[in-house]
Amino acid sequence: MAELTRETAASWDEADPLRSFRDEFDLPEGVLYLDGNSLGALPKKTAARLQQIVTEEWGRDLIRSWNAHDWIRYPRRVGDRIARILGAAPGQVVAADSTSVNLFKLLGAAEGLGRGRSVILSEEENFPTDLYVAQGFSGLLGRCRLELVPRANLVAAIDDDVAVVTLTHVDFRTGEMHDMRELTRLCHERGALAIWDLSHSAGAVPLHLDRDDVDFAVGCGYKYLNGGPGAPAFLYVAGKHQEAIRPPLSGWMGHEAPFAFDTDYRPAPGIERHLCGTPAILAMAALEVGVEIMARADMGELRAKSRKMGDLFLQLVEERCQGLGLTPAGPRDSAKRGSQVSLRHAQGYPIMQALIAENVIGDFRAPDILRFGFTPLYLRYVDVWDAVMVLKRILESGAWQRPEFQKRQLVT
Amino acid sequence: MAELTRETAASWDEADPLRSFRDEFDLPEGVLYLDGNSLGALPKKTAARLQQIVTEEWGRDLIRSWNAHDWIRYPRRVGDRIARILGAAPGQVVAADSTSVNLFKLLGAAEGLGRGRSVILSEEENFPTDLYVAQGFSGLLGRCRLELVPRANLVAAIDDDVAVVTLTHVDFRTGEMHDMRELTRLCHERGALAIWDLSHSAGAVPLHLDRDDVDFAVGCGYKYLNGGPGAPAFLYVAGKHQEAIRPPLSGWMGHEAPFAFDTDYRPAPGIERHLCGTPAILAMAALEVGVEIMARADMGELRAKSRKMGDLFLQLVEERCQGLGLTPAGPRDSAKRGSQVSLRHAQGYPIMQALIAENVIGDFRAPDILRFGFTPLYLRYVDVWDAVMVLKRILESGAWQRPEFQKRQLVT
Repeated sequence: MAELTRETAASWDEADPLRSFRDEFDLPEGVLYLDGNSLGALPKKTAARLQQIVTEEWGRDLIRSWNAHDWIRYPRRVGDRIARILGAAPGQVVAADSTSVNLFKLLGAAEGLGRGRSVILSEEENFPTDLYVAQGFSGLLGRCRLELVPRANLVAAIDDDVAVVTLTHVDFRTGEMHDMRELTRLCHERGALAIWDLSHSAGAVPLHLDRDDVDFAVGCGYKYLNGGPGAPAFLYVAGKHQEAIRPPLSGWMGHEAPFAFDTDYRPAPGIERHLCGTPAILAMAALEVGVEIMARADMGELRAKSRKMGDLFLQLVEERCQGLGLTPAGPRDSAKRGSQVSLRHAQGYPIMQALIAENVIGDFRAPDILRFGFTPLYLRYVDVWDAVMVLKRILESGAWQRPEFQKRQLVT
Repeated sequence: MAELTRETAASWDEADPLRSFRDEFDLPEGVLYLDGNSLGALPKKTAARLQQIVTEEWGRDLIRSWNAHDWIRYPRRVGDRIARILGAAPGQVVAADSTSVNLFKLLGAAEGLGRGRSVILSEEENFPTDLYVAQGFSGLLGRCRLELVPRANLVAAIDDDVAVVTLTHVDFRTGEMHDMRELTRLCHERGALAIWDLSHSAGAVPLHLDRDDVDFAVGCGYKYLNGGPGAPAFLYVAGKHQEAIRPPLSGWMGHEAPFAFDTDYRPAPGIERHLCGTPAILAMAALEVGVEIMARADMGELRAKSRKMGDLFLQLVEERCQGLGLTPAGPRDSAKRGSQVSLRHAQGYPIMQALIAENVIGDFRAPDILRFGFTPLYLRYVDVWDAVMVLKRILESGAWQRPEFQKRQLVT
């Protein structure tokens, strides 16, 4: 392959069918933002939409907005938009609560359908909050337990005791992606259900929840969906399971008739029963803006660009950063990666701090991972190029050894 | 007592020590907003604060804001401000999730401390979502059950089987207020714990959670705290209980070291362990504005004005609306009421719709309650006067009988 130049990257940007999406985001001047997998960038329309919902809907129309602006169906309306991104028919997704809380709900749903099986199975590599939630859930119930195995042993561990397997589709550290279709098939073959955490996949890779016969999924609104910090999360329940589920977090917004104010809980028909408390209306408005943009993008084009950006990054690191202590931490084959690339380096923490000080923003994941997210909606190939050049310079100069980069932040 | 005139009410407004607070809210021209107990009004500063957090903190500083703007401690910071309103020392309150989700957490906490007692006791009059959550909780666990009694039988029902009593401090229908101190004392005397839902009390009546030896409390951010629709709720755990609790909803934000990404959950010291998923940062910023205003108000002055407004309303209804079918639904003695007054009328629903059409905004609670909230921060005595005059006119004219007022809305 001919040696890559910045001009090559620029020519790819010229030809990029997604290039106009970048104009829909407010990106700070001079920043190479490779952390959209942790907190997505700000869409230009979000501030105006928030002003509108605050001053007109809340301020002027006040309580009447629950009807007049249909706030009451906001979680379902945004959910249906998210469903398109997930490859799911309407009526199977709501936007609500946090990913962790939604996972708890689905563990309750799956355990209830588990016909006496007592094991919740996951992998040690899973995103920790998912493990913590499963620990809390099984600790509370007493009658089930969380079994954790290394990824390599996962398939073998799906046995007759397993009620549900809970996994994150794309590994938060390495970017490695599970074969959701095949693992779900295996679970079903062995009588188990599967819950997928799509926090690092929704808006990042093509998803086909309906086609792949997925039972349950949760995911995050503030990463690739660009819904803002702490945006409402989402929850998917396949239509076929819906009527059988008695939600463990049964609040009034999941009641068949919330404003009848009955003393007895009766679940709403369908997906709405998974709502619990009053929806976070302001946050929902911000999420909707991000979701609306994402739903307009062609997922095939997104995926192609994402893979090509990751490959470009890895090729440049291989070609330009030899002998500087970096090792790829995830799959070289882009078909097996999500939309992030991770590198290991024994001094990963201070190196990432030095990168951030130079306005190349990725993040660090203990113990030694430098993580770079590639968000095709608003990143350019030249950004990838420029980021690697800064990384190379920092490693060659030893700039990361400055004492201020050793200082641990609360959030890494 | 001399007959009241509008001039009397206006003179009270002149002398009102809280009158300047009204200028801190954006109230729509011509609207008499008597539903701040359902959705508080918009503080003038909220729109600007949201613009700032969206464009500067999210848009410009992006992921760095978790450290740079201390987003990571936002739930605790807002919680400590709320604690002052609740009569609680710092370190016992966080702002997070919804009231329903927080109640679930505290049911888990209380059940865990319940030493084998199996009953969750509540009253039939409790706010329904609290009952639904307790039903979901006990249904999930299997080993405990919800016992519901009419309010009149409540005290007698606190027996040796009761692990926890869960009550709403101010009745959402009638405004009747429990004696929190005495009921908590009784619970303790009989070996039970108490959870108080303060959704209709926080910011409405003086609270002394520490002094009254309250174990647990939850409450709402979008009513008297003026945090915006679906604002984060709050949760209080008395310091003495904190270290013994293993939270049932154990997510990464409640972990001792979230960014260590360990596989095992270790609860954070203190109140933070009750956090679960990523906090809703944008919504938290809006809540903070409302809480900051409320924390500046003198709670004694607030309570005095609230009682006087309720008394004025009831006196005017008695004097001016005789024979029009209205009956007070709650205590006549303002010391036993929260900050709302409720009236019964067989045609309550269309009457409330007619009031709303005339810009007097209260709400309806099935089967027959017209509910009027008095929020001393932004309401005037003349508003109370004017509202009763509109009510009287609607009843006398029969304007509520128009067909459009019969039409049921999704949200009442």
